[in-house]
Order: sequence, then C-alpha cells, then structure tokens
Amino acid sequence: MEVRLALTGFGNVGQGVAHLLVERPEVYRDRYGVDLVLTGVADRGGSAVNPSGLDLAALFEAKRSQGTVAAAPGGHAGLAGEAFLDLAAAQVLLEASSTNFENAEPGWSYVLAALGRNMDVVLASKGALVLHFQELMEQARVRDLRVLFSATIGAPLPVIELAERVLIGNDILGFEGIVNATSNQILEAMSNGATYEEGVKQAQELGIAETDPTLDVDGWDAAAKAAIIADAVLGAALRLEDVQRHGMRDVTREELEQARQQNQRVKLVARVMRRDGGFEATVGPERRDRSDSIGRLEGGQMSITYFTHPLGTVNTTIEGGAGGLQTALTMLRDVVNLARDRGWASPSPR
Amino acid sequence: MEVRLALTGFGNVGQGVAHLLVERPEVYRDRYGVDLVLTGVADRGGSAVNPSGLDLAALFEAKRSQGTVAAAPGGHAGLAGEAFLDLAAAQVLLEASSTNFENAEPGWSYVLAALGRNMDVVLASKGALVLHFQELMEQARVRDLRVLFSATIGAPLPVIELAERVLIGNDILGFEGIVNATSNQILEAMSNGATYEEGVKQAQELGIAETDPTLDVDGWDAAAKAAIIADAVLGAALRLEDVQRHGMRDVTREELEQARQQNQRVKLVARVMRRDGGFEATVGPERRDRSDSIGRLEGGQMSITYFTHPLGTVNTTIEGGAGGLQTALTMLRDVVNLARDRGWASPSPR
Repeated sequence: MEVRLALTGFGNVGQGVAHLLVERPEVYRDRYGVDLVLTGVADRGGSAVNPSGLDLAALFEAKRSQGTVAAAPGGHAGLAGEAFLDLAAAQVLLEASSTNFENAEPGWSYVLAALGRNMDVVLASKGALVLHFQELMEQARVRDLRVLFSATIGAPLPVIELAERVLIGNDILGFEGIVNATSNQILEAMSNGATYEEGVKQAQELGIAETDPTLDVDGWDAAAKAAIIADAVLGAALRLEDVQRHGMRDVTREELEQARQQNQRVKLVARVMRRDGGFEATVGPERRDRSDSIGRLEGGQMSITYFTHPLGTVNTTIEGGAGGLQTALTMLRDVVNLARDRGWASPSPR
Repeated sequence: MEVRLALTGFGNVGQGVAHLLVERPEVYRDRYGVDLVLTGVADRGGSAVNPSGLDLAALFEAKRSQGTVAAAPGGHAGLAGEAFLDLAAAQVLLEASSTNFENAEPGWSYVLAALGRNMDVVLASKGALVLHFQELMEQARVRDLRVLFSATIGAPLPVIELAERVLIGNDILGFEGIVNATSNQILEAMSNGATYEEGVKQAQELGIAETDPTLDVDGWDAAAKAAIIADAVLGAALRLEDVQRHGMRDVTREELEQARQQNQRVKLVARVMRRDGGFEATVGPERRDRSDSIGRLEGGQMSITYFTHPLGTVNTTIEGGAGGLQTALTMLRDVVNLARDRGWASPSPR
C-alpha cells in the first residue's frame, strides 16, 4: 500500500531518508508491502511538494546547487508550517530538523500541526520529546495517532522494541547506554593519541558530529536521550535538568592513556536507575574494562543495556555505529512498524 | 481480557510458566491487560483440566508427591492428546514437552491437534520446527493462526523481534549465536579447572542441563537452534543434517588453559551465513578474544549477532543466562505479543 511521507529537515538525516527511497525502495515494497512516497520536503529555504511523489534526484541537485529544496520542481521559497503540510497531503510526518532544547522549534510546531491533520509522526529531532513528552503523547492518544521516535534515542539501537516486545513480564530497574556517538568517537581518537581538536575533526569527517559539537561533548545530547528513554520506558517524566550531566571535555589524554594501559576505555555513559521511588539520572565519563559490554566498544559504536528482574541484564550493541544513514534507516523502521500497526503493510510471514 | 492456556509438559519450563502465573499474574494483567488462566496441564502421567482455571499450588504438590499432575484436582490419569485439548478448552497451546529430533513427538501431534482446534501455538520444544518447519507454518497460515517459538531459539534472546521489528530495511547476511547454555557453561567450568564430569554436574545444578547432556555437548541442540533461526529469519529451509556440527566433547582442558592464558575463551558458536546463493551452517567450538562480543561471555550467558547490510553488526547478549524461568518468561512474552496481535491485550502506551 502507498504510504505518503512529508519530511521536515533536509540535512544528514533527511537526505539519508531520501537516499534510501532512491536506492532501496524495492526492499520496503517487496518485504513489507509499503510503497513509500515522499510528497513534501521542507528545509530552511522553503519546501518542495508533489502529492504524487517528488523527483528525488532533483531534490539532491537543488540542495547541492542552490542550498534549498525550494529550488527543485514543486518548490516554493519560504513555504513552511501548516501550508507546507496541507500541500504535501501526507499520512506521516518525518520530523528531522535540527534539535532545539530551548523551545523545541521548528519541530514542535510541525508535530502539533501534523497531529491536527490526523497524521502520524516519526521523529528524529529531540526537542519536542525533551520539553513536551507528556503533552505530545496525550495529544496523539486522544486522536488515536502514533508518535514514534526510535531515531531520537541512539538510533539504530532497539531501545523501545526491547522494552515493549522482549522484556515483557520483567520489571525494568534501569538502563545504561552509549547513546552519543560523537563524544565516544572523540574519546577513542584521543586515547589513540589525537588531540581533542583532531578528535572533533575526525568525528566530523565520519559524518557523526555537527559543526558545533557542544551538544555532544558537553553531554547535552546524551542527557536528552537518557531523559527520553526514561520517560518512554520507565514512565519517569524527567526534565533535561534532572539529569546530572558531565561532558567529556575535561577528560585528559593522560587519563585516557592510563586507562588504555590498564586494558580499559573511558566512555561517556548515560544511565537512569529507579531509586527510592524516584529516578537517578546521570551522564558522564566512566572507566570500563575492555571485556565489559560497554568498555569493549570502539569509536562511535552504540549500546543499550537494560537491568531487569527477573531476567537480568540485557545488552544490545550496534557495532556499525551511528550516522545519517543509520538514523534514516531507523526512521523508516518506525514507518514500517507504524504501517503494520495501521494495517497498511502486508502481514508478516508469521 | 482472559487468555486461556493449555500447557503440555510440566518439567523445568512448564513449571516455570506455572510459577510465573502464581508469582506475577498482576504484571501481565496490569501492564498488558491479559488475564492468563491455565486451564489444562499434561505430563507423562496424564493431565489436569479445569476450563475456569486450575489450582496451581495443587499442581505443584501433585507433581512433587505423585510425579504427575494427573493426581491434582481435575486430574485424569492417562488423559492426553486431542481429548486433553478438548477438555482444556484453551485459546493457546504452550508446548513444553521434551524435544525429540527423531519424530518430533509428542509435540508435533499436540501442535497439529491445536491448530485443528483453531488454537494459536507457543512452542518451547524444537522437534516440530526442526522436522516440519515449512508444513507447520503453512498449516498455521491457511487457518490464520500464529505459531510463535522464541523459547526454542536461545530463550530469552530477542532473535525474531530483532529480525522482524528492528532490522527492517536491512539485508540479513547471516548470524552467529551462543545459543546453548549448557555446553558453554561446561566449557567455562573446565577453563576454571573443573573436569568435564564436574562441569556437567555444575550445569545440572544450575538447572540448565538435562540428566543426559548428549544433545547439548554434541552440538545437536545448538544445530537445531541454528536451523530454526535460519528457517525463520533467512528463509533457509535447513535440515538438522545440513548443519556441520562439532560438539565440545573433544575440547581439552589444555586447550582451554592455553586460551585463558591468551585472554581468550573457547565458546560453542552456532553460525549460518548466506554463501553463493545457499547457506553455510556450522556449530563448533571457537577461540574468541575476551574483548569480543562472544568471547566476553561467561558461563551460560547467551548471545545473538546479526550481520546486516547496510546497518552492520548488531549483537544482543543476555547476561543473566538461560534456565527454566527464563524460558518460561519467553513463552509468556510470545503469549503477550500474540495477544496484542489478536486484539486481546490492552493497547500499548504508544
């Protein structure tokens, strides 16, 4: 069945989504029975819309040569917001604009407008979740709409799927995660002898760090992910300031060298545990043995560990790491699971 | 909603299911909206049935004192097969009798009888899957029934959930798993200085090894799991004899000591990879570094690793290991996911 998608944001992640729709459309059509059609894309310069499906090659070309999709066929400079959604006429909003922890914009307005138009939402930006988790879920619930957000919490880690479909019957006592690729990539580079600046540059070249890595290296990104996971999985209702946050800026090359000599790694770990009826939420650098589930991870590899009763510890690691492509894959994974839930997909083999 | 369960087999796993229904019924009722009611249990001595729900404490007592649930209230010596299913009047069959790789009985007959009575099936025994995978799935498909079997493939590993709901959009190139707890527990004990016999005894005391550990130590159990996973996830249609199988009996304490000195472990690894349009399936002991996803695992810990494109390697580890309780939890996880699929469960929070 055809599933029409409107995409807000055309950076690393948004372009990754478009690439997958160009390169692997048959995977989604043949295996899951969903014909994914991109009917609208908005970026800072405006939008391109076509309810029968945009010309994806032209989008890339317009972005490359003119800096905005508004220069592509179907393009309108300055078109945004509700007018964009009305023209795109999609079933699902893919929100992949830049994360904003101050007022969650432009994502929050896009999400509210989409829900108001009876659209389901798949998020890659974190602002709306961090600032408005309860309100967002309630707005979706009263309209029987879905808000999925795997891409915001250490994509492509199976954070929600494990909690909802695998840990069934267990109490989740807490979790720890390596959820920020950039800071851990920089720590790895530094422990291999690079300076902090060289580490940042390397992470940028790998496509996992922003031009301004402040949100990553100061732990804001990891703290936001910890809060979202805690809200979603533990029902915690954490604000960003409830997470005790230490970034990796103060970690010295000497400390890293010392850890290395003791067969350890320093990783930026996010952790939330139930404590005394409340929650203890922290982000900070930790020394871990290389035989440990987290200490063994190199560079930008990601990991989520759940502590549960009675099953015990369940750890999942993505050794391929996280970048725009992985995040885009994760958004489309949410789209397929949503389509199944909606009856838009073909039945699974079993 | 009430979900009535009929259970065949009342050993480690079957009793684990009953224990969970005694100890944690509110978990299933409050979180997932399913009221799990055991209406029938069959063991080698006969059955106990009560369509409004069996007295679970009486079942344990009858098993302990008389060796069969047939001695409990609602008990019938010799009651089995179709007559048992008719009297139990359940919606779901939980098949947890002993695995039989020769003719898949008694599981296969129970499964066919259940499907014929419009019951969904949750399996812990492997015989029917190993010998009749395609026929079983076809029999379920034509009746729009579900056959779930997470408990057969290295319970509580999230083998199917990862493949179906997380690796969406990726090609699965193959997998490797630590799926047999017993043989790996024995290898661990031997590398800590125990003899083979002491290792077997230790695994039996931990409740993960059978009285006759042949199926485990000769790799039959791991090979069966590899074949089932390959059938389910790769569409491979493997027979047990298609798996090149080496058990762990020939591994010497000297080899284990040598590995240990080199910061390695010897693990019994099951692996299936796509190769030249077909599949290469192996089970055997391998030396792995302790910083490796598999080499770091102690004792009876379990692990599944998927090799995928474009996402890369995805590894999940259950550090708590696998025993009767974990397998029982996994059967009830399948029941809850089935109940959701059927509309018997309350909607998930999102």
